[in-house]
Amino acid sequence: MKRMNRRAFLDKDHKFTIKEDNIPSPQDDEVLIEIKANGICGSDIHFYREGRLGNFVVDRPYVPGHESSGIIVEVGSSVNGFSKGDHVVIEPGIPCGMCNYCKSGRYNLCPDVVFLSAPPINGTFCDYITIRHDMVFHIPKTLSFEEAAMAEPVAVGVHAVNRARFKNGDTAIILGAGPIGLLTAQAFKAAGGGEAICVDFNESRLRFAKKIGIDKVAIPSDSSLEGVADVVFETAGASKATASTFNYCRPGGCVVQVGWPGGNIVEMNIATFLDKELDYVAVNRYANAFPISIRWISEGKINVKDLITGRFSLDEVSEAFEYSSKNPDKVVKTIVLND
Amino acid sequence: MKRMNRRAFLDKDHKFTIKEDNIPSPQDDEVLIEIKANGICGSDIHFYREGRLGNFVVDRPYVPGHESSGIIVEVGSSVNGFSKGDHVVIEPGIPCGMCNYCKSGRYNLCPDVVFLSAPPINGTFCDYITIRHDMVFHIPKTLSFEEAAMAEPVAVGVHAVNRARFKNGDTAIILGAGPIGLLTAQAFKAAGGGEAICVDFNESRLRFAKKIGIDKVAIPSDSSLEGVADVVFETAGASKATASTFNYCRPGGCVVQVGWPGGNIVEMNIATFLDKELDYVAVNRYANAFPISIRWISEGKINVKDLITGRFSLDEVSEAFEYSSKNPDKVVKTIVLND
Amino acid sequence: MKRMNRRAFLDKDHKFTIKEDNIPSPQDDEVLIEIKANGICGSDIHFYREGRLGNFVVDRPYVPGHESSGIIVEVGSSVNGFSKGDHVVIEPGIPCGMCNYCKSGRYNLCPDVVFLSAPPINGTFCDYITIRHDMVFHIPKTLSFEEAAMAEPVAVGVHAVNRARFKNGDTAIILGAGPIGLLTAQAFKAAGGGEAICVDFNESRLRFAKKIGIDKVAIPSDSSLEGVADVVFETAGASKATASTFNYCRPGGCVVQVGWPGGNIVEMNIATFLDKELDYVAVNRYANAFPISIRWISEGKINVKDLITGRFSLDEVSEAFEYSSKNPDKVVKTIVLND
Amino acid sequence: MKRMNRRAFLDKDHKFTIKEDNIPSPQDDEVLIEIKANGICGSDIHFYREGRLGNFVVDRPYVPGHESSGIIVEVGSSVNGFSKGDHVVIEPGIPCGMCNYCKSGRYNLCPDVVFLSAPPINGTFCDYITIRHDMVFHIPKTLSFEEAAMAEPVAVGVHAVNRARFKNGDTAIILGAGPIGLLTAQAFKAAGGGEAICVDFNESRLRFAKKIGIDKVAIPSDSSLEGVADVVFETAGASKATASTFNYCRPGGCVVQVGWPGGNIVEMNIATFLDKELDYVAVNRYANAFPISIRWISEGKINVKDLITGRFSLDEVSEAFEYSSKNPDKVVKTIVLND
Repeated sequence: MKRMNRRAFLDKDHKFTIKEDNIPSPQDDEVLIEIKANGICGSDIHFYREGRLGNFVVDRPYVPGHESSGIIVEVGSSVNGFSKGDHVVIEPGIPCGMCNYCKSGRYNLCPDVVFLSAPPINGTFCDYITIRHDMVFHIPKTLSFEEAAMAEPVAVGVHAVNRARFKNGDTAIILGAGPIGLLTAQAFKAAGGGEAICVDFNESRLRFAKKIGIDKVAIPSDSSLEGVADVVFETAGASKATASTFNYCRPGGCVVQVGWPGGNIVEMNIATFLDKELDYVAVNRYANAFPISIRWISEGKINVKDLITGRFSLDEVSEAFEYSSKNPDKVVKTIVLND
Repeated sequence: MKRMNRRAFLDKDHKFTIKEDNIPSPQDDEVLIEIKANGICGSDIHFYREGRLGNFVVDRPYVPGHESSGIIVEVGSSVNGFSKGDHVVIEPGIPCGMCNYCKSGRYNLCPDVVFLSAPPINGTFCDYITIRHDMVFHIPKTLSFEEAAMAEPVAVGVHAVNRARFKNGDTAIILGAGPIGLLTAQAFKAAGGGEAICVDFNESRLRFAKKIGIDKVAIPSDSSLEGVADVVFETAGASKATASTFNYCRPGGCVVQVGWPGGNIVEMNIATFLDKELDYVAVNRYANAFPISIRWISEGKINVKDLITGRFSLDEVSEAFEYSSKNPDKVVKTIVLND
Repeated sequence: MKRMNRRAFLDKDHKFTIKEDNIPSPQDDEVLIEIKANGICGSDIHFYREGRLGNFVVDRPYVPGHESSGIIVEVGSSVNGFSKGDHVVIEPGIPCGMCNYCKSGRYNLCPDVVFLSAPPINGTFCDYITIRHDMVFHIPKTLSFEEAAMAEPVAVGVHAVNRARFKNGDTAIILGAGPIGLLTAQAFKAAGGGEAICVDFNESRLRFAKKIGIDKVAIPSDSSLEGVADVVFETAGASKATASTFNYCRPGGCVVQVGWPGGNIVEMNIATFLDKELDYVAVNRYANAFPISIRWISEGKINVKDLITGRFSLDEVSEAFEYSSKNPDKVVKTIVLND
Repeated sequence: MKRMNRRAFLDKDHKFTIKEDNIPSPQDDEVLIEIKANGICGSDIHFYREGRLGNFVVDRPYVPGHESSGIIVEVGSSVNGFSKGDHVVIEPGIPCGMCNYCKSGRYNLCPDVVFLSAPPINGTFCDYITIRHDMVFHIPKTLSFEEAAMAEPVAVGVHAVNRARFKNGDTAIILGAGPIGLLTAQAFKAAGGGEAICVDFNESRLRFAKKIGIDKVAIPSDSSLEGVADVVFETAGASKATASTFNYCRPGGCVVQVGWPGGNIVEMNIATFLDKELDYVAVNRYANAFPISIRWISEGKINVKDLITGRFSLDEVSEAFEYSSKNPDKVVKTIVLND
């Protein structure tokens, strides 16, 4: 165990400062975790570059990071099921546990959810963090911390697949071959889905997709894709992609919106939507998705290792963000390792 | 039984001609029905006024009408369950019964569906029609033919409610207080829904809605409606109404698109859609909805009688269309009775 | 507010003793409720008569009661949404809020649930009780406390209906015309169900069922009931009734087991089960059912008033139990009112 | 093409006679298939040995067989989508296409279904058969006919999995390691299921299960299995196995009854069923399951090849039945090939 707790604070001027403080103590229902690895999320990069995302603004220094794995180092007095030395990942959105959403299985919609790394809440780019025990999940010790840290983005893909309505063996088109697209495509197949077709206009991303085992890749203008998908996952986060989703779908199919389009407003073809009697479902983070995410990573059903395109140490967090921000074509997922 | 079969043909010049022909004979798996009442649908009016709707064009005279009730007068040799004299309604979209859609319960999406009154297919503004027996449903003899004819638009509302995801007691906002809106609101309540709020900018329609027993009415700009609906039914068939649906919905809610907006393209707020993690589902006609529609009309759970604002005879079909077309504010549903 | 807290303790020798203690104070996340009415549940009677039920044993005095309504008299420091004077009912099973069951919407299966009145946990036959605020639900002030107290048994019926798979307008057979049967039948209809047929061998119960508005009643041996139900609710709590359920069901239907049969083991006809490809679902208490239960009671969709066949004061709790225990034919629901 | 149509008739005295007749011609909506391979089903063996099964009795010679593959040799005049030379499998239960069950996606419950090989209906142990085109499914030409013939038992497993309620990654216990058990276990995993544990008291079957890749095997008395399954599939067709299913299940889990227990009546522990709030669902053949069955066989997700333990020619059908009947321990699936 280290003697101090390094925490990497990001300020509104795009600068990181590492501060050392005392290691916190867990409350009765919390555990204390020594962080071993963190992924850099696209949202972290938004806060780094633009100082804001949606309604969240960096108006004072905060600690980013919410894709993290580590080791239990202390267990609160009322916590069962965890021991010192356990390897774990953190689910970073802590719901209230008492509202209607929490009680009906959709705790991701809890109005009082506390999300680590949503400013001003501090995230996981640090050495130690305390967290309510029910948001912590065991991982096998055979799994590397860097792969385990990717359970969080995998959970987005798993939740997207859970929200989708499809039958075993159905065909999916996944728009966007970035990390979320590639993980969603793999989650779809692990969940009984049939052919997964990744669509992106960036040829190098398509080659990458093909390399990690996606069935088929195509560019958005490929007219042979029209009406072939039972389910379409939009992960590109682009208005044009979003507007095209209904087109790829067969009658009776389902479109799952995962990515946030650049602008809020998108011109959707409601006539096609009606004619095909589609289902269109939105995805906002995840709920009850971490155990299966960890399972599928561990079993190799979801390949996360090949998505890791860069590794930095916690002291290099500034370089890690700068590199990820500047190399969108080369970077799929950057991992920061606590040494 | 009459001696001849009057059929009201509509041509592309907006004119009706009534022709008399021999009464047809049913195939082995068909029944012959003497039509007693027909409702005029909004789509009939579109063909009357504009000579086309979507991909369907009136390029030669055809018989409109698909909201109809009547009496069985002859039964095909292989048909069980029907007898001469039975009172019935017709489900006007005849699916193939063999494709994947038909076999999986979504026969309204059958690519080979034959829809009565979709030109050039003849509809039910006639005295006699033969139809495959499985598209014919018994009604109690205590139910009037004019009310029974409304089983078809009621089925749209029932299907919209079946497609919606909601819990017992949930609150619905129904955009549009025309026939489909009023029937959907009533179907929602009959299906266990809670408060139904009809929204329309037309005050006289709102007064009418209130009169027939809708819980609450409001104008679209009423800001107290924001985020209060568990489920929103868009039946207004307007782009602006469609664009506003996500706004009325609470997080985790469902929006059901029933109406066809004027233009194909609508500017939808995808950020709201994602933030609230909504479900958005389209409705294209109905499937498996006639039995419950008839039941709810018969039991008085859906009031159709008060929606009938005009009655004409078959010989007056031209006047009936002209009146309905010219008086959108006064007309809710016009019925044509075969005398 | 009273000066002391009366609590009615039941011991293993079937005797009640009323003790007076100080009024408790709510924790931060709790409210303090002054109890106004309690229903006597069948399980309370089991503990009274036999000193045990399932694995729960009365080995020391405890307070029974878990069907209760009252008034908020104090609100914990971190509680929002409640004020002194609010009228409320209590959901008596307090789940942990953190386990997989709690997080996935099935908190009634929480292994750490604390159920008021399951010995040795004290229940609600008292003047004051503190309880976590999320298990407390507002009622309209126009609703009587005795009716509100019945939200708990209504919630069993509502949950049974939620667990059932049926379509709008379907036909239900409800075995057993006791309180749970009558409430389930009404909940079924409120939820969009069609005809509800109550079956009991006790003719006076059937007359009572008919009187409070059940569509149809029958005795178990009525052969016209075979294969007519889309859904069967078994609430009689008898082995013979349970064994007969598959028989009443049509192919593709659903049987819902609500009552606990006398013996654990029942001889079920698995050939019929397979031949009809049925669904058979069990019901254990309820989850997320109180708001709709309160709503349906308040709206009069579920008539609880006519089920109340006796009223006693808290000081007469012993007489209330003795009366209920001795008069199974006359008693439907006994209410104990705190004066 | 052969000149005559051999058909293998089984009589009530357990004897086969091969008759040669003219090759039939397809109706307008039918195709003519040259059969290439047939599997022998357990139900065929029942008719062979006992002359009856359930309500079906061999009172005159009939042709058994309903697990078959072949080649299209003639196409009816109104059939699209098939050509001479196509390789296909037959779904042997032909539904009416018009009843409520057919229209709502549960055509396996059609009361007018015609099931090939259910006496007196002739089955597929023949050279040529005509069948309605919608019950015929393409297979890739790279797939062997003997593997393709197993699409029918695979469809039972697929339907069992479709009827089950489970989440991705859940654990299944499959009781019975015969053909249906092994195929259901594989279908479960292909559909996103997690660990599959096959349970049988026959050690040689367990070794076989392990050999073809089942995750884990166990004997029924293994107490470590209690309460560990999210879903239990009973395929053993034994009363004792059926009675034990609830025990293996965790609270909130699902039991799927696939096998027909020896006797109709089984003593089920309803107290456990209620305490765990289980779902118990029956499986009767399959609906909409052939396309995915073929897909999973073709992709190798379901290994059928290793289940084939014996091959005979059509002329040896009598020997094939005798061998299968006499060697229950050695035989998993016997295939009859038309040469």
